[in-house]
Amino acid sequence: MKLSKRVEEIAPSGSIAIAEQIVTLRRSGKKIIGLNVGEPDFDAHNDIISATQDALHSGKTRYSLVAGEIQLREEIAKYVNKKYSIESEVENILVGNGSKQIIYNTFQAIINPGDEVIVPIPYWVTIPESVKLAGGKSIYVNSQKDFHLDIKAIEKAVTKKTKAIYINTPNNPSGVVYTKEELKELEVILIKHDLILVSDEAYEALVYDHDFISPLSISEEMKKRTICIQSFSKTFCMTGFRIGYMLADKNVIKSISKFQGHLCGNVAPFTQFGAISALNNQEKILRPILKEMKKRRDLSYDLFSTLFPCHRPEGAFYLFLDIRQYIKDGLVKDSYEMVELLIEKGGVALVPGSSFGQEGFIRLAYTADTEEIKQAYDQISKVLV
Amino acid sequence: MKLSKRVEEIAPSGSIAIAEQIVTLRRSGKKIIGLNVGEPDFDAHNDIISATQDALHSGKTRYSLVAGEIQLREEIAKYVNKKYSIESEVENILVGNGSKQIIYNTFQAIINPGDEVIVPIPYWVTIPESVKLAGGKSIYVNSQKDFHLDIKAIEKAVTKKTKAIYINTPNNPSGVVYTKEELKELEVILIKHDLILVSDEAYEALVYDHDFISPLSISEEMKKRTICIQSFSKTFCMTGFRIGYMLADKNVIKSISKFQGHLCGNVAPFTQFGAISALNNQEKILRPILKEMKKRRDLSYDLFSTLFPCHRPEGAFYLFLDIRQYIKDGLVKDSYEMVELLIEKGGVALVPGSSFGQEGFIRLAYTADTEEIKQAYDQISKVLV
Repeated sequence: MKLSKRVEEIAPSGSIAIAEQIVTLRRSGKKIIGLNVGEPDFDAHNDIISATQDALHSGKTRYSLVAGEIQLREEIAKYVNKKYSIESEVENILVGNGSKQIIYNTFQAIINPGDEVIVPIPYWVTIPESVKLAGGKSIYVNSQKDFHLDIKAIEKAVTKKTKAIYINTPNNPSGVVYTKEELKELEVILIKHDLILVSDEAYEALVYDHDFISPLSISEEMKKRTICIQSFSKTFCMTGFRIGYMLADKNVIKSISKFQGHLCGNVAPFTQFGAISALNNQEKILRPILKEMKKRRDLSYDLFSTLFPCHRPEGAFYLFLDIRQYIKDGLVKDSYEMVELLIEKGGVALVPGSSFGQEGFIRLAYTADTEEIKQAYDQISKVLV
Repeated sequence: MKLSKRVEEIAPSGSIAIAEQIVTLRRSGKKIIGLNVGEPDFDAHNDIISATQDALHSGKTRYSLVAGEIQLREEIAKYVNKKYSIESEVENILVGNGSKQIIYNTFQAIINPGDEVIVPIPYWVTIPESVKLAGGKSIYVNSQKDFHLDIKAIEKAVTKKTKAIYINTPNNPSGVVYTKEELKELEVILIKHDLILVSDEAYEALVYDHDFISPLSISEEMKKRTICIQSFSKTFCMTGFRIGYMLADKNVIKSISKFQGHLCGNVAPFTQFGAISALNNQEKILRPILKEMKKRRDLSYDLFSTLFPCHRPEGAFYLFLDIRQYIKDGLVKDSYEMVELLIEKGGVALVPGSSFGQEGFIRLAYTADTEEIKQAYDQISKVLV
């Protein structure tokens, strides 16, 4: 059966190859510390589980509204309105099967074939694939040395075909949280060139040292131009629930709802009641997660920055480790080889920077307890001596 | 914000306009019998609910395999292998968010821009939209008077651009189940013109008078060319679980898994354990549903065929009622007007045939108990006298 060009051209995922290598090694009896997966190691909170079970019991098992349960969208609106000091309503929100599908919806909704999207490096692997699946072209732009946005480079990349700029803050894999100042500089470019901002904020509740600034809070003008992508996966440890959402102009939500209506209908309603419970119990659920993640952030930064130059992450749960000295010294030839070496000799799994478009770096997810992080450090140190 | 052509061009759904009209009338205190929605009125079986709750309790709340839980795919393989006398394996199966997403996956995977898909009339509204979203063109072909396939008309519609033929058996809205003979005639065309068959079998367990014949059972040659689309929604009353699946060649599944990996990741794993329970308890769950649906089929056919010419449905849960005499007599000008009339004067909601590309007909879903069906008949009779 001859398949379509779009499907044939999807790049194989580098991290899947690593995941398979880990499975093989573990099967052979080897213990591997997995700091590779972008998934919190905490279970979803009991309140979330109970609320989902109750919704199943009370018959929330039928077709539901395409854009999501009204009650969930009301709670989301309350949450973001308070957090971002904005005024959004139910009609500004669409719930989808995880932020991946929200990203897919977004690019399908804004990209005509040939349109360009500016994507700062490093980026998450699904972004260029999602842009390509919409017929668009990703224009990659290097960031500054500290992984904050290089606004001049972004403006230089704008052409007549540019439709949107994509950003991810807090950033996977760099851990950088963009400042109000750089978002304001971005606003100038968006207005000057009449562009859409796709702002992926899946990690917004995982910010350690200061408040998170969303592009939505910068100005009405910026909010009007922004499609904001959010998720319950990372912040509420609900990866398997597959619930993400989009915040945008009401007309945009209306059009994308029509699209989603044909793509998949609605998200399973009982899972949405789990998300309602997450928002209703947000303080109780998020505080201990944030506290533990901050402890791990401090520990892993203190340890691994002695082996690799790296920036202290301000958000998300990743360290992005500079391995260029090891490449220069001839230990490995690139980030993929480094990851292979650390799995095989060190028993610790990380992800190569090349998966994020940034060679010379590797990503460590501190989604393991402090004992495992220390153990991982010891094992990696021995490989690098 | 200027959106993409593909999203701007999505047709508004006629049935949503009707759904809104029903909501308005019900709010004003009017009682409307809803025979419009393609959703069983039974709740999902307790075993399914409990299994899903147990999976939530036991931590099936993390990222999972893109193509679906191994255990679910094993159970699906057992189910279809027994039912269709075929030999499929885990690698022949991909689980998605409802059969809508499986249909979307399918057309994205096989259609290049400009390719044609032959779609027999009547068809489900999402089909042409899904074909269009993949850049393809639906070529509509009338069926025979009894709504069985017009094989000659199908062959006549084949051009150099034809990539696939889409069929839906048991058929929504006609209730027809295609025979072994007509599927064999279809096989000849598929082979002769080297085409793919997209076979939507979402209602396969709801067949009343004889065994269901899937194109997969016809021959190895036909199976090789077929992408089979299935769902737990209609047969197991799991509409809100959003679980559909695809049966196809292993290489096709592998490629579409890559696509789904970027589109939405995986389906919520705990919902998949509900589906495993459905298959494990299939006899207990399906027997009473089939018995009740058959009773309703007989009742509603006996009643409504006195008002409208119609064929006795062999499967699914719809009557497709011929209203051409009423149009000829000037009562209404088309199926949309007839549906409006029956809602407003009769208090019964149906769906216009125009939503399925078949003017002159209206669809009745017998997804209500026998008392309501009788009541609906009485009320409609009075409008038509």
